[in-house]
Amino acid sequence: MVRDLFLNKKKASADYETLRRVFTAPEGRSSTLSHIEKEISKNIQRFLSQHIVSGDADPEELERNFKNTSIPEEPIFVSEQADFLLSKVVSQSVHTSSPSFIGHMTSALPYFMLSLGKIMTGLNQNLVKIETSKAFTPLERQVIAMLHHLIYHFSADYYQKTAQDRYNSLGVFCSGGTVANITSLWVARNRLLGPDGDFRGVSNDGVYRALRHYNLEGLAVLVSKLGHYSLSKSCDILGVGKRHLVAVDTDHEGRVNVDSLEKEIHLLREAKIGIVGVVGIAGTTETGHVDPLADMAKVCRRQGCYFHIDASWGGPTLFSEKHKSLLNGIDQADSVSIDAHKQLYVPMGAGLALFRDHQNLSLIEQHAQYVIRSGSRDLGKRSLEGSRPGMAMMVHSALHVLGRKGYELLIDHGIGLAKTLAGMILESDDFELTTEPTLNILTYRYIPPGFKDALSDAGEEQLRNLNQRLNQITVAIQKTQRANGKTFVSRTQLELPQYGDQRIDVFRTVLANPLTDESILKMVLDEQRQIAAELHD
Amino acid sequence: MVRDLFLNKKKASADYETLRRVFTAPEGRSSTLSHIEKEISKNIQRFLSQHIVSGDADPEELERNFKNTSIPEEPIFVSEQADFLLSKVVSQSVHTSSPSFIGHMTSALPYFMLSLGKIMTGLNQNLVKIETSKAFTPLERQVIAMLHHLIYHFSADYYQKTAQDRYNSLGVFCSGGTVANITSLWVARNRLLGPDGDFRGVSNDGVYRALRHYNLEGLAVLVSKLGHYSLSKSCDILGVGKRHLVAVDTDHEGRVNVDSLEKEIHLLREAKIGIVGVVGIAGTTETGHVDPLADMAKVCRRQGCYFHIDASWGGPTLFSEKHKSLLNGIDQADSVSIDAHKQLYVPMGAGLALFRDHQNLSLIEQHAQYVIRSGSRDLGKRSLEGSRPGMAMMVHSALHVLGRKGYELLIDHGIGLAKTLAGMILESDDFELTTEPTLNILTYRYIPPGFKDALSDAGEEQLRNLNQRLNQITVAIQKTQRANGKTFVSRTQLELPQYGDQRIDVFRTVLANPLTDESILKMVLDEQRQIAAELHD
Repeated sequence: MVRDLFLNKKKASADYETLRRVFTAPEGRSSTLSHIEKEISKNIQRFLSQHIVSGDADPEELERNFKNTSIPEEPIFVSEQADFLLSKVVSQSVHTSSPSFIGHMTSALPYFMLSLGKIMTGLNQNLVKIETSKAFTPLERQVIAMLHHLIYHFSADYYQKTAQDRYNSLGVFCSGGTVANITSLWVARNRLLGPDGDFRGVSNDGVYRALRHYNLEGLAVLVSKLGHYSLSKSCDILGVGKRHLVAVDTDHEGRVNVDSLEKEIHLLREAKIGIVGVVGIAGTTETGHVDPLADMAKVCRRQGCYFHIDASWGGPTLFSEKHKSLLNGIDQADSVSIDAHKQLYVPMGAGLALFRDHQNLSLIEQHAQYVIRSGSRDLGKRSLEGSRPGMAMMVHSALHVLGRKGYELLIDHGIGLAKTLAGMILESDDFELTTEPTLNILTYRYIPPGFKDALSDAGEEQLRNLNQRLNQITVAIQKTQRANGKTFVSRTQLELPQYGDQRIDVFRTVLANPLTDESILKMVLDEQRQIAAELHD
Repeated sequence: MVRDLFLNKKKASADYETLRRVFTAPEGRSSTLSHIEKEISKNIQRFLSQHIVSGDADPEELERNFKNTSIPEEPIFVSEQADFLLSKVVSQSVHTSSPSFIGHMTSALPYFMLSLGKIMTGLNQNLVKIETSKAFTPLERQVIAMLHHLIYHFSADYYQKTAQDRYNSLGVFCSGGTVANITSLWVARNRLLGPDGDFRGVSNDGVYRALRHYNLEGLAVLVSKLGHYSLSKSCDILGVGKRHLVAVDTDHEGRVNVDSLEKEIHLLREAKIGIVGVVGIAGTTETGHVDPLADMAKVCRRQGCYFHIDASWGGPTLFSEKHKSLLNGIDQADSVSIDAHKQLYVPMGAGLALFRDHQNLSLIEQHAQYVIRSGSRDLGKRSLEGSRPGMAMMVHSALHVLGRKGYELLIDHGIGLAKTLAGMILESDDFELTTEPTLNILTYRYIPPGFKDALSDAGEEQLRNLNQRLNQITVAIQKTQRANGKTFVSRTQLELPQYGDQRIDVFRTVLANPLTDESILKMVLDEQRQIAAELHD
């Protein structure tokens, strides 16, 4: 009772001294927050060994914890907020590091990233300008050059000259693959519709005048139907229009048909449509397939088209001696997107766009009087984003602590697992492999006993009905599995050559966690079988 | 010798067991990285008490540490990388938390942010979809609703219904003010040029067809000449064209002249130019001035124009009972940008765009088969960015631990300091106040003895020459002060009414660190006087 009174008295207050303490006094070792820090560290170890991908609260239940929308008038203690975070947020987050969480592109991180996360927050640098980033600016340029080197392997002399030269840009660091893709197509659009006589370029004069000046009736971007949705988003933002993202025909493996590509380019040009760019995919988000990059590069060179490669997922395949040939031709691209928070194993919020020509990023250059002045070292001159954190430190550290050979192990492990899983599925009676493994992404579906024969014997209409039923089963299994919280795969809808234009729901696995192994794959399949059996009951 | 041999043998290796350790074993308490974590914590305390804003290495010297552009073949130990980070990166970063670093918008953070930085990294959630973020999704929606509430103060009932409703969006969380501004103008453009009969809207059909359909000759965005450079960038990206960012006349205090604004709208419409939006500024980046928001809102309503307010800097002024009336009319805006990594005191990489109409963000909605399906709770449906980290946890915590009253103290402290500094400058013989303080940003310049009288007596040409000389002095002082590393102010160029169209270089201070006080302001002025005296020698 006395204690309660005491606690009631000791309320957080909004005076200058309290505020000063909030800004100057580190949390004590025995504080709730330090306790959570340690707990998280332990928890991650637990997630890594046990198989729990998330708690059991459903979304409606969770939403109830976040209903209050008034900003509190009075401050509360850090410990109070920490208690809230622990019970309502941390404990109800998704264990993206769990080896049985194999449904999305967010995976385990090297442990030292946790310390770097704290260090980065503490330093709070801003990469938009050198006055708020200092050593972080050349550090970021180095990281960009290292990845440029991985893709384009220009001479040591070239990098010696350009990597730290403020007048050149080998690439731009950003928050992720979407921004990298938008930036690349922005560069491509501004290059296609550059200044010419009185016309000051699309950048200054806008899309309408640009098309009138160049006597065009529209713009287009070409990519296979497996292109990431950020490309459609890019077309919206950049004024191209989402309808003008042209889906190029693919072969049975979802890879761009280069003859169709070239034909499409001709048709568009006959219709007076300007080609902003052709996009090749190195690792489609849904199936992990890789377009025939070298052949696409040839078409683009012949046709004088800008060639961008979305290697947000698959770029790091270049680390593997065994598999890097899958990306042959990537060094012919005008630009390449890579996500560092995917297969470079750094925390969320890091992507890059790399450019073959170190002058191309000047096509999107901006200036202001108080920063990013012409001739300055400020990286904010040539980026879609403004203020940005020092995430490059994470990438620099991962590249050094893992090394090329460490990444090679990770890549080989993942692709190996995808092949193992494909084998398990092919050998089973009750699963169907829906796409072949190229990289470490695989799709498949469950086929209940009896359905397999029915599928192979069915006529067109019957097939459609069977697939409709199977789609329902796939969706139901995935939802139940997700709710159970032990293992997790995602799902998507694909057009598969054997089933015509009917969209087929499939499970989608992404095998990038180094701790995922064959026993976990078996566990995932077993759980799906069991859920299916229960659905049937 | 034996020890050396041992160390040489004990090299990091790229085998599976090493890799497993990197992913599963936390750094020990006595590891180099844990040591740096502790050091950073101590260092920040040191930066907060001493007056050092950065080390003394010059940019060329720093660049030499980041010349190697090959990705290392072999892994190195975390401890080796940590040594590198400590000596070459951490020690050569900018001490943005130092109270004498008053030149940019990056300031000290509450200490608990360091722990949260580690926790966020450890959880590695991805807000693009609920399957990789779970509780973080309703948490982010709550934070958005809290800031929406701060700006628009709709009823409790309204927020009860909309805040967690997956079909509505009160705003979007993003990496910063630039993305918030682009997103807002993207919404504005898509609203102006929406679907109509056969025309499927600018989003689908692109800018060229949109303008033809609506019989327009171009597009425009209107803002005062003090608008942030991200608005010009937005015009480039969105296909409007940078030349079509129309600079509206301002009064002597740099505030939009509303009569000119309305006249400009008429002129543009007569020339068949579609008005994408009018932008009001709540705290210009260079001078901290606030546009007459309520009057601008009236013009926009009368003219049927989309009204966006860039409150990236000044938004949190709403926390102050004393100063919030400066932002009167903000609740009439269609959208408002706020940077959380500025005056909400969270780490770099957090901004928001809030929307008055919870349906407006559907104008930029995107879908995919494997995520952000129609009707899903996935926040990635309506955002420029794709994958995003759980920064909302930082904002949620700051809003609770500081409370409305804590922020009020911070805001009042900063504006108070700006007025104090203005007073010190007005009382001095050797400084000139170049803009009046509105918020906590102030510009001024140094005037050497004798120049003041010369300035007031000078004819037009003489004045021009004097200012040219003063511009050189301002730039020289700022550069020397920056290189000295004890105190830091930034600089910019302004047009000042008393000097016609000549651009005047000025010092720019941003007073947002709660630990900055009058004695530091005195120190800054004294150092500038001393540098000036030495320049003169």
